[in-house]
Amino acid sequence: MSKHIVVIPGDGIGKEITDAAVKVLQKIDDKFHIGLTFETKDAGGTAYDKYGTPLPDDTVEAAKKADAVLFGAVGGDQWDDVEPSLRPERAVLGLRKALGLYVNLRPVKVSSVLAEYSPLKPDIVTGTDIVIVRELIGGIYFGDKCESEIHDGVERAWDLENYSVPEVQRITRFAMEAARKRRGKVTSVDKSNVLATSRLWRRTVIDVAKDYPDIVLNHYYVDNCAMQLALNPTQFDVIVTGNLFGDILSDEAAVLGGSIGMMPSASIGELTSLYEPIHGSAPDIAGQGIANPCATILSAAMLLRYSLDEDAAAAAIEAAVDKALADGWRTADLYKEGFKKADTHTMTDVVCQYI
Amino acid sequence: MSKHIVVIPGDGIGKEITDAAVKVLQKIDDKFHIGLTFETKDAGGTAYDKYGTPLPDDTVEAAKKADAVLFGAVGGDQWDDVEPSLRPERAVLGLRKALGLYVNLRPVKVSSVLAEYSPLKPDIVTGTDIVIVRELIGGIYFGDKCESEIHDGVERAWDLENYSVPEVQRITRFAMEAARKRRGKVTSVDKSNVLATSRLWRRTVIDVAKDYPDIVLNHYYVDNCAMQLALNPTQFDVIVTGNLFGDILSDEAAVLGGSIGMMPSASIGELTSLYEPIHGSAPDIAGQGIANPCATILSAAMLLRYSLDEDAAAAAIEAAVDKALADGWRTADLYKEGFKKADTHTMTDVVCQYI
Ligand SMILES: CC(C)[C@H](C(=O)O)[C@@H](O)C(=O)O
Ligand SMILES: CC(C)[C@H](C(=O)O)[C@@H](O)C(=O)O
Repeated sequence: MSKHIVVIPGDGIGKEITDAAVKVLQKIDDKFHIGLTFETKDAGGTAYDKYGTPLPDDTVEAAKKADAVLFGAVGGDQWDDVEPSLRPERAVLGLRKALGLYVNLRPVKVSSVLAEYSPLKPDIVTGTDIVIVRELIGGIYFGDKCESEIHDGVERAWDLENYSVPEVQRITRFAMEAARKRRGKVTSVDKSNVLATSRLWRRTVIDVAKDYPDIVLNHYYVDNCAMQLALNPTQFDVIVTGNLFGDILSDEAAVLGGSIGMMPSASIGELTSLYEPIHGSAPDIAGQGIANPCATILSAAMLLRYSLDEDAAAAAIEAAVDKALADGWRTADLYKEGFKKADTHTMTDVVCQYI
Repeated sequence: MSKHIVVIPGDGIGKEITDAAVKVLQKIDDKFHIGLTFETKDAGGTAYDKYGTPLPDDTVEAAKKADAVLFGAVGGDQWDDVEPSLRPERAVLGLRKALGLYVNLRPVKVSSVLAEYSPLKPDIVTGTDIVIVRELIGGIYFGDKCESEIHDGVERAWDLENYSVPEVQRITRFAMEAARKRRGKVTSVDKSNVLATSRLWRRTVIDVAKDYPDIVLNHYYVDNCAMQLALNPTQFDVIVTGNLFGDILSDEAAVLGGSIGMMPSASIGELTSLYEPIHGSAPDIAGQGIANPCATILSAAMLLRYSLDEDAAAAAIEAAVDKALADGWRTADLYKEGFKKADTHTMTDVVCQYI
């Protein structure tokens, strides 16, 4: 039996970091005999330049048929003037919708090595171990919108924030199940003191929680959550929230957690799932071979765990990355005096060696 | 000539902290002969209990006629089950709308004293000096909403995010003028890679900026801004953004800046303006006389500056608060060994004495 992975490098450093992760996956395959096969597809600005669209049908079709998708990053200044519907990031949104990736999963786990790189004081951040469960194909991202509308001479634009009960039920259940395998706590984030959508969100979460009496549930307003993440991040276990709040809070949590160069993510769908680093395409360092591949390598570990049920292989990658850091290897983004400097290749080779 | 101030203590610690600020304003009046007069009005849960509404007409009418409004805080668990339209926080939203308070101004200035209390590492946060200019009576807060709607058996709720060109122009001009009196930099925050409203926002900001060639303008997506505030807060001068993003980012910035017990705010309208601490009503410590009054006292300083044009009096308050801290006075929220512990009264008296 073989497992087919579609690799979508995208733009900027996307190729370097997905190459690195594929190399690690090949090493894993040598050891665990999963039977991995790989196929590369275009998306983002690179695809726009070649085919006039950031998300060719061919890429979507291949992704749909794959056992899992490994994604790099998209975007770059050179596509700033492209019309909104054809910009590189439409590939991200388009894939989420086409594959039905209804949850974005972002672990933020702060080891003492990473705590050093956090902007937060070490005593505040050390020991943080959060999973953010963000709803990814609903809310204001995919609601109706209007770019421009004129009434009585006044121009206005709008976007519709909205959630249905089944959408909130599904993501809440996902969060509750995740918490069951962790420390049994879920924090739901909304703005129910202002938004009707948040009031439906909150009552639905409370309702679903009745099926999970073993889980401790609390609720924060999004503004308060943005504060709590900075003040006391270790209070959180699983955070569940909508698409827009999840976008903001997961990025805040990621930088507080140390380095965005180390943070993986999984976007889970009913049929196939997509794995990508949380950082962007970093056009300023593209092609120099100095990008930190760890976030993508750790995303590949999530791929093994969630799409292929290969827990041991996933753990082997995570342990190898930990060991590389513990042994003093640092890519440019994390380099400090006294450490061993690694470019993308070296870091990848070290991780492969430790597997 | 006299200047009439309507004081709205609200709930929880609201009375203690507005009492403190009024005492400081009276001391200021003794010295600067402004001719201040005060009148107290109800709002929040307390008003709901008395009159069945969190915002009596009488309070709104008095506020409209005042030269300025000093507001405490509203809210408390005991009103959690009150129906949404009658909850304490409706008083806040109602006053904003009734008085046309179109901008919320939040300074975050981190002295070396405050840096100690910040969750951020001192070398990252020291020297931060930001003003957040948040649009306050538009956006998704005041757009149409629907609590529940059923189509094909699926229940859904929605809220309409929206901005008009004139709304964005007005807040942008305010931010540009503020930057002119500061370091000449404006960062506009939106989510224009996803939201139509943000695209109108961004192009309008760019358009208005043409009238301010002396101001350096940049743009961040809201998720990136949430990261940048934690990574490198000293890069910011003036941040301008919509109602919802402003709510989240200003709270994040406030805690990163040290203590929310020290952070004032001003909500500016065409006719009258309202001043309040950014913290809440803290029901857990209400009535104990230990609340930190500084945020409200510093809000009173903003009142003097923005509503009464009394810059010297405002500066006198700010200097007195700084001196109280420098001399080692700390309320319970900031107390550490080696400092002089002050309750609400003592802190207020120390500040009055230093004026
Ligand atoms: C690129 C952009 C559309 C995207 C989002 O807002 O979801 C990104 O910020 C993310 O979080 O994956
Ligand atoms: C109380 C609430 C409605 C309010 C808001 O969301 O604007 C508060 O969070 C604030 O920032 O003043």
